Amino acid sequence: MDVLIVLAHPERNSFNGALFDTAYETFASNGHQVQTSDLYRMNFDPCSGASNFTSRKNADYLKLQIEEIHASETGGFAVEIEQEMRKVEAADLIILRFPLWWFSLPAILKGWVDRVFATGRTYGNGRFYENGVFRGKRAMLSLTTGGPVEAYESGGFNGDMMSILRPIHRGILQFVGFDVLAPAIHYGPAHVEDVQRPQWLAEYANRLKKIDDESKLDVGQYV
Amino acid sequence: MDVLIVLAHPERNSFNGALFDTAYETFASNGHQVQTSDLYRMNFDPCSGASNFTSRKNADYLKLQIEEIHASETGGFAVEIEQEMRKVEAADLIILRFPLWWFSLPAILKGWVDRVFATGRTYGNGRFYENGVFRGKRAMLSLTTGGPVEAYESGGFNGDMMSILRPIHRGILQFVGFDVLAPAIHYGPAHVEDVQRPQWLAEYANRLKKIDDESKLDVGQYV
Repeated sequence: MDVLIVLAHPERNSFNGALFDTAYETFASNGHQVQTSDLYRMNFDPCSGASNFTSRKNADYLKLQIEEIHASETGGFAVEIEQEMRKVEAADLIILRFPLWWFSLPAILKGWVDRVFATGRTYGNGRFYENGVFRGKRAMLSLTTGGPVEAYESGGFNGDMMSILRPIHRGILQFVGFDVLAPAIHYGPAHVEDVQRPQWLAEYANRLKKIDDESKLDVGQYV
Repeated sequence: MDVLIVLAHPERNSFNGALFDTAYETFASNGHQVQTSDLYRMNFDPCSGASNFTSRKNADYLKLQIEEIHASETGGFAVEIEQEMRKVEAADLIILRFPLWWFSLPAILKGWVDRVFATGRTYGNGRFYENGVFRGKRAMLSLTTGGPVEAYESGGFNGDMMSILRPIHRGILQFVGFDVLAPAIHYGPAHVEDVQRPQWLAEYANRLKKIDDESKLDVGQYV
């Protein structure tokens, strides 16, 4: 299996970093091919715009979707975008590894999606959702929160986590055709006792060893 | 009234840019104080991290919330963050002006939230939601889409727009205490007839002239 793990955390020695390392080591030691994108250490630029392209259909007026289609047809994506596209295209499984910020992805990871999932190449022309470009591939969110699990339960302080994640599950991952696996969520790792985090790492490794057996999640649709 | 308009679009001559200009001119010509943040033209860095701070509580290990509280107590935010914080704090009304990308904010605007809405300064210590720091102030999303309105209706191709916007309305704006006004949404401006866009600009101006009369929206809670 080819696996891509994308990490979005400014502190490499964070618990997110440890979970990233655990995933890398677990897959690699079980004979899988693992690619990584450690976005902060790559200084990945998340601002979608003219820098996405090496040549332009219209250099005077930037319409991203027109330029994305043009770049898809002419191989005109900037090197750092093309590299990320190839990683995604090669992967059977992608894991997005991040702290939940403002009910959503950190900007550096949102911008990775904004720039890399370009129309023409990754969606469009009837290729959406169940007909998506990445159908048959799987994707999983792997996240930490600041607050405790109770805050993200139905009726809790913030509300049901699966509803909060739906724009990502439905609007990003399923939109381009991925089967979505159940998210790996660690709630409030900054506030647990020190013995908890190594246990969580071990449990995470155990889950990943058997991830090929998992079925896709019903993330719910917007109604 | 003090108004802050934040623009997130890479093409200044886009319809988003025109809507931004319309809002600026409408408020300014009606005697309001208007501040702006044109994030792409500012080259705003959306990656929350060590660059948020001029001094650190712990220079060896970055915990953003610890450093945000420290910076709130010591005036230690980077100049570009402090400037944006002051604009938000001075505003009676903020308008976030953007194209909807992947059911969410463009990364440059998501990162403006990630970096500027810092704990200690803009939330925390019991100041959330109805007790939020910005209670009594109002906020409005002003967005365009690629797809037509039918795609964002209940049962449509993507699903109900208000559900899609809920992480922003509820998880960002209401979280820090804003009263949320009904979003201004222009669907598929790239695909309408040329006469439509000037009409939309005029209608938008008419709405903004009377915005003081508007009541806050019930955005729905997560259940």
